[in-house]
Amino acid sequence: MKLLKTLSVGAGLALLPTLALAQDAPAPTFDEIGPYIMTTLLFLVGGFLVFWMAAGFAMLEAGLVRSKNVAMQLTKNIALFSIASIMYWLVGFNLMYPGDFNGYFALNFVPTVLEPVGLSATEAALDYASVGSDFFFQLMFVAATASIVSGALAERIKLWPFLIFVVVLTGIMYPISGSWQWGGGWLSEAGFSDFAGSTIVHSVGGWAALAGAIVLGPRLGKYKDGRVNPFPGSNLALATLGTFILWLGWFGFNGGSQLAAGTVGDITDVSRIFANTNMAAAAGAITALILTQIMYKKVDLTMVLNGALAGLVSITAEPLAPTLFGALWIGAVGGVIVVFTVPLLDKFKIDDVVGAIPVHLIAGIWGTIAVVFYNADASIVTQLTGIVAYGVFTFVISLVLWIILKGVMGIRVSEEAEINGLDMAELGMEAYPDFSKG
Amino acid sequence: MKLLKTLSVGAGLALLPTLALAQDAPAPTFDEIGPYIMTTLLFLVGGFLVFWMAAGFAMLEAGLVRSKNVAMQLTKNIALFSIASIMYWLVGFNLMYPGDFNGYFALNFVPTVLEPVGLSATEAALDYASVGSDFFFQLMFVAATASIVSGALAERIKLWPFLIFVVVLTGIMYPISGSWQWGGGWLSEAGFSDFAGSTIVHSVGGWAALAGAIVLGPRLGKYKDGRVNPFPGSNLALATLGTFILWLGWFGFNGGSQLAAGTVGDITDVSRIFANTNMAAAAGAITALILTQIMYKKVDLTMVLNGALAGLVSITAEPLAPTLFGALWIGAVGGVIVVFTVPLLDKFKIDDVVGAIPVHLIAGIWGTIAVVFYNADASIVTQLTGIVAYGVFTFVISLVLWIILKGVMGIRVSEEAEINGLDMAELGMEAYPDFSKG
Amino acid sequence: MKLLKTLSVGAGLALLPTLALAQDAPAPTFDEIGPYIMTTLLFLVGGFLVFWMAAGFAMLEAGLVRSKNVAMQLTKNIALFSIASIMYWLVGFNLMYPGDFNGYFALNFVPTVLEPVGLSATEAALDYASVGSDFFFQLMFVAATASIVSGALAERIKLWPFLIFVVVLTGIMYPISGSWQWGGGWLSEAGFSDFAGSTIVHSVGGWAALAGAIVLGPRLGKYKDGRVNPFPGSNLALATLGTFILWLGWFGFNGGSQLAAGTVGDITDVSRIFANTNMAAAAGAITALILTQIMYKKVDLTMVLNGALAGLVSITAEPLAPTLFGALWIGAVGGVIVVFTVPLLDKFKIDDVVGAIPVHLIAGIWGTIAVVFYNADASIVTQLTGIVAYGVFTFVISLVLWIILKGVMGIRVSEEAEINGLDMAELGMEAYPDFSKG
Repeated sequence: MKLLKTLSVGAGLALLPTLALAQDAPAPTFDEIGPYIMTTLLFLVGGFLVFWMAAGFAMLEAGLVRSKNVAMQLTKNIALFSIASIMYWLVGFNLMYPGDFNGYFALNFVPTVLEPVGLSATEAALDYASVGSDFFFQLMFVAATASIVSGALAERIKLWPFLIFVVVLTGIMYPISGSWQWGGGWLSEAGFSDFAGSTIVHSVGGWAALAGAIVLGPRLGKYKDGRVNPFPGSNLALATLGTFILWLGWFGFNGGSQLAAGTVGDITDVSRIFANTNMAAAAGAITALILTQIMYKKVDLTMVLNGALAGLVSITAEPLAPTLFGALWIGAVGGVIVVFTVPLLDKFKIDDVVGAIPVHLIAGIWGTIAVVFYNADASIVTQLTGIVAYGVFTFVISLVLWIILKGVMGIRVSEEAEINGLDMAELGMEAYPDFSKG
Repeated sequence: MKLLKTLSVGAGLALLPTLALAQDAPAPTFDEIGPYIMTTLLFLVGGFLVFWMAAGFAMLEAGLVRSKNVAMQLTKNIALFSIASIMYWLVGFNLMYPGDFNGYFALNFVPTVLEPVGLSATEAALDYASVGSDFFFQLMFVAATASIVSGALAERIKLWPFLIFVVVLTGIMYPISGSWQWGGGWLSEAGFSDFAGSTIVHSVGGWAALAGAIVLGPRLGKYKDGRVNPFPGSNLALATLGTFILWLGWFGFNGGSQLAAGTVGDITDVSRIFANTNMAAAAGAITALILTQIMYKKVDLTMVLNGALAGLVSITAEPLAPTLFGALWIGAVGGVIVVFTVPLLDKFKIDDVVGAIPVHLIAGIWGTIAVVFYNADASIVTQLTGIVAYGVFTFVISLVLWIILKGVMGIRVSEEAEINGLDMAELGMEAYPDFSKG
Repeated sequence: MKLLKTLSVGAGLALLPTLALAQDAPAPTFDEIGPYIMTTLLFLVGGFLVFWMAAGFAMLEAGLVRSKNVAMQLTKNIALFSIASIMYWLVGFNLMYPGDFNGYFALNFVPTVLEPVGLSATEAALDYASVGSDFFFQLMFVAATASIVSGALAERIKLWPFLIFVVVLTGIMYPISGSWQWGGGWLSEAGFSDFAGSTIVHSVGGWAALAGAIVLGPRLGKYKDGRVNPFPGSNLALATLGTFILWLGWFGFNGGSQLAAGTVGDITDVSRIFANTNMAAAAGAITALILTQIMYKKVDLTMVLNGALAGLVSITAEPLAPTLFGALWIGAVGGVIVVFTVPLLDKFKIDDVVGAIPVHLIAGIWGTIAVVFYNADASIVTQLTGIVAYGVFTFVISLVLWIILKGVMGIRVSEEAEINGLDMAELGMEAYPDFSKG
């Protein structure tokens, strides 16, 4: 996102005393309020599209786990979204956009307050958008980060420790590291560039997932006698639906991150972002399609789905500057990454159920590096600095948190529960009770 | 909805003679037409989001019935939406917004007519929106009401009597009671407040469902030997998808009910509504999550889904005035309502397959009462008057109608059909023919 | 679509030298840029809705094939969309909108180039919209055409020859025939009228599918001993979801084809299109519901779904001019078409797995004819000329291409693969591995 939200909002608030004098002035013209209305609308539409990604993650993950764990995966997804919504209101939003601060963290633990009902034009941040729309849009991003974690740790993590992790991730960790860039902090000052969050959202989710996967260990029987046993997803129609939902939502994710829609330049840029985002996804999917055909003599649908998602993550750090051809090859590299790093993780016995780490962490790093090819203002050193900073911060804190949770309450279900499925063991219900198991 | 549609439209039409003189005047400026364009756009976007709720209800209900009744439930949902679309055009819209009338009902049985193609600015209701967009938006609401009924009465009601009920509900009943408030009728005059329809849409659907459930009786074997037998839903992934769809659509449901988007105040209010709507859903879900863990030692996913929906229904009567904290606690009470009233209905042997009555009727009543906490213009007496008026009108007429339908053609399938499933008995097909039953 | 995109864009570019002089002029007012912003927004919102139709086709088709072919159907759908995205960029868009050309085809093989980042108002086609949004919107249409083919040929066509066909269809065939009308070619000159593509998109997909179905032949066992064996779809919940998705996406498909949203007349027309589109779908569904009840004594859900889709295709050639009653009867005829032509195809032993030919080809022809009832500028002779021209061109080239593909690499899987299912044979995976087959 190229602007800093709170600077604009702050500017709007700072203008209040002055503008209050002008309340007897004539009604504002559309030249004055049009950009505010359009940008607010961009956040609302972009926001509901990114909201929809929560359903996409839920369907993708429910489709890629075994049927005995589907209800639990659904429960985790709706719960994590709800927690993110509450925590980001309670502390996250103001931690992330603290206004003037030291650049590293702000002890700004206050809930979000929206503008009053019926805001007058003189009180509004006319050069930006409504706080309500901005908050709505931003909270969808933190929820996406948490969704990434739930996929990787599926099929063996306990519900409640996972949700506690989500509380900390969405209320504290993500907002603090987010403030470094989008809150106007030290990385922003240093010139780091991550338009819609290849690093800030996706690789952060990936690092938290990686730490969790290491502490948690692989699923029973996944790595046995030196072999990797595939545990096929129970419902590839759902997984495909989830991918299409995520692809759709990504137009809001990247397009809304233009943070403005009220000028010819801004709305044209949003168009460019939509076209590039679509191209990167298509290229990632086709690359995985061709590569799996060549390497395995058979196309692998789950690789194609993850290829599309990796293409999307790859273009997220810079969806505006590249040409359509640029979006194509950046997304295609995302597809290559997925095909080669999914088996690599298995070599290290890191069990990532849905491929979240290749898609969000590794393609996220790639996308952040790829910024330098099309954005002349970006430097590779600063990009690497940002990648490492987010990685170290998120991975270390996540690791500590997972270890504490493991020590205090245990994070893994019993062997029996894992074998019987988390649905019956932890929820006492099945996702598909009428269908006998093959 | 805070404005009365037809008053504005009427005002626009009343201006016609005057404005017609101005046709040689210079082209209208964006200051004149911008609000009309933005509000029309709000209705179109809000309308397609609420349309999407029809799919949400279909998926939720298909996921919560047993697999032998899924195809029938899908059939009912697509049919009821189609009937609502036709009936609301044929008579509903003009019954509901009759313009000047006695405040109780208008015998205004005329189909909806849209503006001519290529409407000129001088002919438009520039202080409101296009009739086409308004009609499109409003008809989605009546369809939602009918969807509520189909869920409660699933798994034993015959297709055709159900559809006949839908004809009357969407063409006559809902429009007449809707006219009391949104058509500028007696409750509107009395100061009743129901922004987007906790009562007018949701509890009306709930009352119609309750009457139907009583006349129809419970499913075979549901209440046997003094015990309540759970009939688990056949596809919780679909049910979760449906909930996410409804949650998404609700941004249009509540946000579009601002009925204006062309000023700073209006678009900022829409933002506020989006944020509050999301918060109430999240709070309802988390409340049900925690309560079921405490009460049953196991989280109940269907309660969490219904908790989110009850949170949404609860905030629908007043999604604008509350703070985010207000939305949180109002939605949380919705979650409490679901957890406690679902078993309560079972005590009375009222068999509501998907929990529609707790979610839409009881949380709808709660939401309508909760208006008084944040909206200084609302009085508890008037709110209760409205709740009772809609309840008595809808419940009594529905009861009579269900009894007539029962007498004339029967509303319940045969015992054999119910045991074998409505899909084979009434449709001659199965929703999942390839999966053997467990 | 009533305007020719490239004419406007060309006009914008032609103005560049002149306007460049004006760069020191005052900032453009919202009166100047408002229409550009609104139309661009229409394309972005319309475009993401039509994107969503790709998911709709995927779900519809995955729901209507047998479970052993579901993963393959999903693979084809995500791959065809990705190919369409790439081919339309590589050559399709500029073949279809070549600007000044001979009216039949333009050898204009150049990739699409978007506007530069941060376009200034003086460089923009202020009377139209951004190239990026136009490209994004148009590419979704070509993908829809390809989706139609995949449904008809399901359950026996090999993956790679199908994808090669998609390359040619989306890169060359569709763009060339599309240029005849939407590129300002000979049919446009002749006065042919096809607002959003009943013929140009839907019947073209249908003709390509028909040619393929003839060359490919029916599925094993479909027509045996003079009888038609039904192969029921494996997941009617998915098929219904797909239908609802398509219905939703169609608001963007038809509404966006107004190609303008920045005046009172245009946004009011878009409203009218939304309302008519919904009405036609509802009428098609209800007609199929009633007809199947009368003819077979049982409602057929798949006919109801296809009835809704046929209603949508029927109104697509002229969603603006008809009254709501016009949309109702035009859509209802679509429903009639589906119920009568699905069995008719079986008489000719043309095996169309999902009913794509009745829905998209036959209802597409109907819709193109129906234009003459409400659009005074349309002549039946010209409409028939267009229908025949698109039919002959697409059917003949498709037939030749399918025959070549059959000769060179074979287009049909082996009998063994077809019996065991394409999922295991071609992909080595199952869509629903946990559910035992009935």
